[in-house]
Amino acid sequence: MQIGFVGLGSMGAAIAMNLVESGHEVQVFNRSPGRAEPLGKAGATVAASPAEAAHLVDVVFSMVADDAALTAVTLGENGILAGLRPGALHISLSTIGVDTAQALAALHLDAGVGFVSAPVFGRPDAAAARKLFIMAAGADEHLKVAVPLLEQLGQSVGIVGADPSQANLVKLIGNFMLSVIIETLGEACAVAGKAGIDPTHFVDLLTNANFNAPPYKIYGAMIASQQFQPAGFSLPLGQKDNRLMLAAAEALGVPLPLASLLHDRFLAVRSQGIGAEHDWSAVALCALTEAGMRKDARRP
Amino acid sequence: MQIGFVGLGSMGAAIAMNLVESGHEVQVFNRSPGRAEPLGKAGATVAASPAEAAHLVDVVFSMVADDAALTAVTLGENGILAGLRPGALHISLSTIGVDTAQALAALHLDAGVGFVSAPVFGRPDAAAARKLFIMAAGADEHLKVAVPLLEQLGQSVGIVGADPSQANLVKLIGNFMLSVIIETLGEACAVAGKAGIDPTHFVDLLTNANFNAPPYKIYGAMIASQQFQPAGFSLPLGQKDNRLMLAAAEALGVPLPLASLLHDRFLAVRSQGIGAEHDWSAVALCALTEAGMRKDARRP
Amino acid sequence: MQIGFVGLGSMGAAIAMNLVESGHEVQVFNRSPGRAEPLGKAGATVAASPAEAAHLVDVVFSMVADDAALTAVTLGENGILAGLRPGALHISLSTIGVDTAQALAALHLDAGVGFVSAPVFGRPDAAAARKLFIMAAGADEHLKVAVPLLEQLGQSVGIVGADPSQANLVKLIGNFMLSVIIETLGEACAVAGKAGIDPTHFVDLLTNANFNAPPYKIYGAMIASQQFQPAGFSLPLGQKDNRLMLAAAEALGVPLPLASLLHDRFLAVRSQGIGAEHDWSAVALCALTEAGMRKDARRP
Amino acid sequence: MQIGFVGLGSMGAAIAMNLVESGHEVQVFNRSPGRAEPLGKAGATVAASPAEAAHLVDVVFSMVADDAALTAVTLGENGILAGLRPGALHISLSTIGVDTAQALAALHLDAGVGFVSAPVFGRPDAAAARKLFIMAAGADEHLKVAVPLLEQLGQSVGIVGADPSQANLVKLIGNFMLSVIIETLGEACAVAGKAGIDPTHFVDLLTNANFNAPPYKIYGAMIASQQFQPAGFSLPLGQKDNRLMLAAAEALGVPLPLASLLHDRFLAVRSQGIGAEHDWSAVALCALTEAGMRKDARRP
Repeated sequence: MQIGFVGLGSMGAAIAMNLVESGHEVQVFNRSPGRAEPLGKAGATVAASPAEAAHLVDVVFSMVADDAALTAVTLGENGILAGLRPGALHISLSTIGVDTAQALAALHLDAGVGFVSAPVFGRPDAAAARKLFIMAAGADEHLKVAVPLLEQLGQSVGIVGADPSQANLVKLIGNFMLSVIIETLGEACAVAGKAGIDPTHFVDLLTNANFNAPPYKIYGAMIASQQFQPAGFSLPLGQKDNRLMLAAAEALGVPLPLASLLHDRFLAVRSQGIGAEHDWSAVALCALTEAGMRKDARRP
Repeated sequence: MQIGFVGLGSMGAAIAMNLVESGHEVQVFNRSPGRAEPLGKAGATVAASPAEAAHLVDVVFSMVADDAALTAVTLGENGILAGLRPGALHISLSTIGVDTAQALAALHLDAGVGFVSAPVFGRPDAAAARKLFIMAAGADEHLKVAVPLLEQLGQSVGIVGADPSQANLVKLIGNFMLSVIIETLGEACAVAGKAGIDPTHFVDLLTNANFNAPPYKIYGAMIASQQFQPAGFSLPLGQKDNRLMLAAAEALGVPLPLASLLHDRFLAVRSQGIGAEHDWSAVALCALTEAGMRKDARRP
Repeated sequence: MQIGFVGLGSMGAAIAMNLVESGHEVQVFNRSPGRAEPLGKAGATVAASPAEAAHLVDVVFSMVADDAALTAVTLGENGILAGLRPGALHISLSTIGVDTAQALAALHLDAGVGFVSAPVFGRPDAAAARKLFIMAAGADEHLKVAVPLLEQLGQSVGIVGADPSQANLVKLIGNFMLSVIIETLGEACAVAGKAGIDPTHFVDLLTNANFNAPPYKIYGAMIASQQFQPAGFSLPLGQKDNRLMLAAAEALGVPLPLASLLHDRFLAVRSQGIGAEHDWSAVALCALTEAGMRKDARRP
Repeated sequence: MQIGFVGLGSMGAAIAMNLVESGHEVQVFNRSPGRAEPLGKAGATVAASPAEAAHLVDVVFSMVADDAALTAVTLGENGILAGLRPGALHISLSTIGVDTAQALAALHLDAGVGFVSAPVFGRPDAAAARKLFIMAAGADEHLKVAVPLLEQLGQSVGIVGADPSQANLVKLIGNFMLSVIIETLGEACAVAGKAGIDPTHFVDLLTNANFNAPPYKIYGAMIASQQFQPAGFSLPLGQKDNRLMLAAAEALGVPLPLASLLHDRFLAVRSQGIGAEHDWSAVALCALTEAGMRKDARRP
């Protein structure tokens, strides 16, 4: 299939490479062009703009950092919408806010172009290994095209519904749930450690019992060892998603005490000098610090 | 092996039956004797007191509702300690507080009797199916006896350490982590539902993705449907464990904001008429109520 | 002095009337013109636009509901800035966000016009009685003009500093502190009431002791009696200020757990049908409801 | 009047001295006898036990640190109850838990002795200056004796009701409300300070406006300057009262999110090395630390 791909960060590059390797003809674009080179060597065409990447393709994927970036690559004279032919389809993989998704869905409808939101759960290594969990939402006719492609990129594709923004909401809720796991592990390791149980041993005990889901294992290991680098998903991106979740919930009239707690945790950990080079699981440092269990106040 | 078993509630009865079926000679005791009858029919001897159940056995198990009950069946002239011969072993399966465990461990040591704490994760059906996750702690010489027996009763036995009370702490932390999952699912279903996504569909989407651990599935189904009966683990017992967790953390000097939130949730849901006949996952009703998503205020 | 006044809600009308009665020549404007009539009868000139109200005056006051309204009456061809002569002064009394204040201050500076933020504490009756507490910030030369005028309108004028937006921040913090008093009284009345102490008697006891500041008396009476109408300061305005406080704190990197709790309380109480016709102290209903102490679920 | 006085800490000594100076015949007892000397010089009789201090008096006051201390000086062969003649009255000034007050009230009733709970608001300097705010509860016949005496010791006496423990509850709620003011000021000073407003100036602005109650002034000055020594009311005592408040509310089925937050704050600040030598307003350090605004991590 003729496919465009816009956004070659660590997630996007891995996914685009899988599309190339699956035999699709792929036109790629990235704002900083260096990241497109490996794709070019693998057989992709390197485009000079999002519009060019979208030119004449059946489907264009986008995978960028936030709402502003997605709006920037989608709209305007060099944007995806300007390049896409009528009847083609835009599959948005980015984790964005519900209101941005709704606005973009409406603009695509006006332009006679399909729009499917398909945000993904998984880190870059899972993307490379086609092990992503994908949440997809959109009109049936667009899902009919999107789902077979998405199934090539992950281990499962959940169909949320007909409104694209609902997939974005489910993704935000999922990240919210992950952030609560991180806080939980921070508090749990603080109490275990202060009782003389080695936190790594403690995490092993519970993840070999009924807490055997991957997030408990992945974040448990980082939090027990207080090692938050390299960042699989960076702290500011996690904070951004917390903000988007709170905004979506506020618009719906739903109080989320757990998300409010995490909101405060993100602010506290960032005011103490933890930043973009750290994984978002570093928010667990708040619980560890409060218990007097933080290993090294200067070099976390 | 000659085994005593004290406490035949829904958990204890299932475990004791497995011991009988594994070929051990079992002497059982329960405060209300009717619960001992099925065990008697299956070949167990029915004892008239905890001391009698412990008489001449190699190992006595206890599985009772709370700290006071364990203290009552252990101490006094009819208690386990009075019946147990020197060198025998008491394996305590109950979920109790850290301080009670420490006090009992010291008393057993004084009496020349072994003491292993081995609290379990799992509901009665898991107990019957020998699928419990068990956390064990005690002196090596006692674990050497206890672990092979415990392995007959569950799917895994984690060795926490040499101090029995540490296993009780790990169990309390585990239940604390489960309570956070329940609150998380309450908030998540509130926001999904208010956005027009059927909560049951929403839970399916996430538990088929990266939230595939059993607690998300079990509690997700109950919370999405707002069906909290019958109670697998009753609300007052969950509240008791929250209290024990907060007490243990306070003694260690560890603030647990998530446990504090749950403390408030338990009080709120009980003040609104939800009680012992409900599963502890009914604390999720707080989040659903606050969002205006509670199905039926009178018959939850 | 020649004075313009834009915004004749219940607060603005009372303040403008005081300016008229103090002998100033006042040109008033309100979006819905009916509210200007009593001022006209008292001697004020009724203007057809904010620009006209600002025309040739020395000082123009504005007192409107929120950031959007202040921006609307200030900018554009009919706005205050278009009407004000160079060297004149705009005194902004509204409770607005820090970022809006900063943006407006910059625009006034560019236009060669003074800008003083002077938000007020007090309800309409306090405004009428010249009992407001006023926080003022701006350049010294502008405060020299503003403060004597403000002293005619309230019982005290606190000088925050040279940056106008700092007065807005202090006002937001003040409202945040009031919101915490409301929540505190809700929780306190819940526990007193459930112990059999009449909440009104309880509030009397404490406000006749060391809690003798006006907010405890005013809100205590409303919360003890669960009477939240008529609204002295409406629930949605209180919620707006909570939002502005959280935004300002987030920009500064300061977690505010108390403001986060109130954020959740506002959402909860509004999702249960309490709205614009209620005083913002109705957020105390959350604490009362959770304790099972709410008098009437349908007619609060 | 013949009066006994048990407990000569900084509060008790000041109150007992006022009773001596008012012309009463006072028999005093303190566990460490050195503290009784100044009273002895002023004309009081120094007793060798609580029973002796209570011997033949009309009224005995007690003012001790906590529930255990009050129980110890009241019960047993050397306790107040053993020394008091039938028909006499015990006025308990200590801040204790509701359940202890209920238990003691019942024991006094059985012994044919009156019992009035009269906990006080105010620090030692207020006690010396007879400026305490006193909450009294008990049977009418006992209040008839107690209130005229209490009025000699404070600036107001509020009558809570007939059940002595209700006065203790009102006192606990009052201290809870004070703790919330402390947290509020911590958060407020963090945000003001980070915005470049000197916290001391900020506190002055608000306490000269509508936050003019003494607690805002007293605690505001300490928190703005981050000076928490000497301790007017020590951190561990504040933590004890938070614990008593949470226990009383739990017994009544009332969730108190604000008290839960403070519970966590007390644990966090103590785990960071702040202790008995600090005023309880040092809990505000949590908010300041989280914002990166704490002056000196080692010497607070």
